[in-house]
Amino acid sequence: MSLDALIVTSAANIRYLSNHTGSSGVLVVTPESVRLLVDSRYREAVRMLQQSPSACPGLAVRDVPASYDAALLECLSDLGASTVGFEADHVSVSRHEWWRRTAETQRLGIAFRPTEQAIEEVRTIKDPFEIATLRDAAARLTPVAASVFEAARAGQSERAVAAVLESAIRQAGFERLAFDTIVASGPNTALPHHHAGDRVLTEGDLVVLDFGGVLDGYCSDVTRTVSIGPPSSEARRLYTAVYDAQQAAIAAIHPGVESSVVDAAARNVLEARGLGEAFGHGTGHGLGLDIHEAPRITRVRADVAAEVAAEVASVPLVPGMVFTVEPGAYVPGFGGVRIEDDVLVTETGCEVLTEVPRDLWRAG
Amino acid sequence: MSLDALIVTSAANIRYLSNHTGSSGVLVVTPESVRLLVDSRYREAVRMLQQSPSACPGLAVRDVPASYDAALLECLSDLGASTVGFEADHVSVSRHEWWRRTAETQRLGIAFRPTEQAIEEVRTIKDPFEIATLRDAAARLTPVAASVFEAARAGQSERAVAAVLESAIRQAGFERLAFDTIVASGPNTALPHHHAGDRVLTEGDLVVLDFGGVLDGYCSDVTRTVSIGPPSSEARRLYTAVYDAQQAAIAAIHPGVESSVVDAAARNVLEARGLGEAFGHGTGHGLGLDIHEAPRITRVRADVAAEVAAEVASVPLVPGMVFTVEPGAYVPGFGGVRIEDDVLVTETGCEVLTEVPRDLWRAG
Repeated sequence: MSLDALIVTSAANIRYLSNHTGSSGVLVVTPESVRLLVDSRYREAVRMLQQSPSACPGLAVRDVPASYDAALLECLSDLGASTVGFEADHVSVSRHEWWRRTAETQRLGIAFRPTEQAIEEVRTIKDPFEIATLRDAAARLTPVAASVFEAARAGQSERAVAAVLESAIRQAGFERLAFDTIVASGPNTALPHHHAGDRVLTEGDLVVLDFGGVLDGYCSDVTRTVSIGPPSSEARRLYTAVYDAQQAAIAAIHPGVESSVVDAAARNVLEARGLGEAFGHGTGHGLGLDIHEAPRITRVRADVAAEVAAEVASVPLVPGMVFTVEPGAYVPGFGGVRIEDDVLVTETGCEVLTEVPRDLWRAG
Repeated sequence: MSLDALIVTSAANIRYLSNHTGSSGVLVVTPESVRLLVDSRYREAVRMLQQSPSACPGLAVRDVPASYDAALLECLSDLGASTVGFEADHVSVSRHEWWRRTAETQRLGIAFRPTEQAIEEVRTIKDPFEIATLRDAAARLTPVAASVFEAARAGQSERAVAAVLESAIRQAGFERLAFDTIVASGPNTALPHHHAGDRVLTEGDLVVLDFGGVLDGYCSDVTRTVSIGPPSSEARRLYTAVYDAQQAAIAAIHPGVESSVVDAAARNVLEARGLGEAFGHGTGHGLGLDIHEAPRITRVRADVAAEVAAEVASVPLVPGMVFTVEPGAYVPGFGGVRIEDDVLVTETGCEVLTEVPRDLWRAG
């Protein structure tokens, strides 16, 4: 498919291509030029960006007086573009329909062509700057974890532990949380996506702590499961199974290995311990400007939708990919365990970027 | 348009209709039934929800073994639905295309019909539970503001102030931040969407503090602009203009008044002070399960795209609407001021929900 221009509407893709960090903006890329459309709220920020070392070479800035879509069509018309690609995963049906209808009414002679994962695919292989940033971001989670291990004690609420954690994330120099912090205790640990509530941590609890921060736009993400007081034998059994599954997955990571093979390495361990049903999610997800991006480390399934195909397809691992390895086991009524680290695929295997202590930790 | 079923994919709309708070899920609503499709990560959470006082009456839960889209088509096929609505603002072109193509291949006989803002429109008028929650959320910002006024002193970095703010938001009982906190100081105040960086607050700075928390799913949002040390006369001039603009807008709020009239009330004040160009954004946005929702309090513009029409159309105000009133003025090279409160439209005018002190405050 030959395109006169590509419309980029995904915020992460816009940042990747232009260094513009605003939450609004549209990029129009042609073989010769890059145009950034922004409204007045971002005009000054873009001017400052273009005077900084992070300036995007040759970036032309177009002002959006009112409607992004009207300004976009005007820009495409000025360019004389007739075959224009757009990111079909990042444009709503109503937006696309307006473009199509308005271009027709105004006789602009533009045909809009869907593209999928074009920039996301490039983003899966991190360059040296991105690797250095992701390594730095992961390393900064170590002091954050130390604070939270100190705070997660019997008598503290999940919410209070989350507050300590988030404050430590700021203190570690992160610009923001990478996602809503998870502090799940006791029976709540059986809910993989519980956040942090009023429940008070109690002797005998397992506590799942899942947190991360964003540094220069790049995400970090770690999970530890700790025990308040000595863990029960069932808690130990669950923890050991998940730990072994995670180690097996990490050991399976090599260039050329299929991502689904990494998932299978973790899944086989849990299935062998009778915990196959207890592990309902995938083993990991790519990490970068988005907290969830390609590659997904999951099973290959026959009944998968094309819409999600790019997310769940198995891909051969390539040096420079960065993703999480986070198997878990969740037993309703009892609780759950998840252990997560961030890894970088290297020429010889992988480097674990997160350095947070990994033993089942005990507080009084 | 008569529909056999409506597919709901917006997370806020799903929560509004079912009380499901997970970040994944699809709702299928028919005249007789409500079905929630969720994967295993949310199975236990939904079971607990349905045993709680927040249970959704008559909710049927369908398991998603692998692909949401495959499970959705299976569900529609089981229902025998032939005309099916979907939320055109919340479905990507690629997802819609997969539905259409797969339904055709499988000869399901389903026609997909775009709908726009169907549930969003209902959500603009808050019910008594929602009003009580929004009032509570707004009131909890008062102690948060007290902490941040204490912390915002010369010598502190924007980031350190943001950390204090976010910790106070947790302590006030909010479940999470409503949006990325803005702490902009000195020249950064000219950037309406600056977040919080390494800049250290300095005597003579203006500092824009824009923050909010989420309580039981509902958002609060307030902005105060303070001065570090005595403000300059130019800072006073800007502040007074924005303050007067905000008061004029609040005074204009009555049932039946057009939302664009509220915007004009603020804009006219700023234009009269020579600050029309310095006020590039709208006067406010609806507040509820989303931090930005209908109604938008903005100008009526001729060149607005249909895609954004629902967001920027002028609507008559109705008791039960809740929105922000937040004019600002931004002068590149000097700085900016924004003042924001949350209001509820009442039978006789409006109630200001946020109670944070509103004077230009001075710290040493």
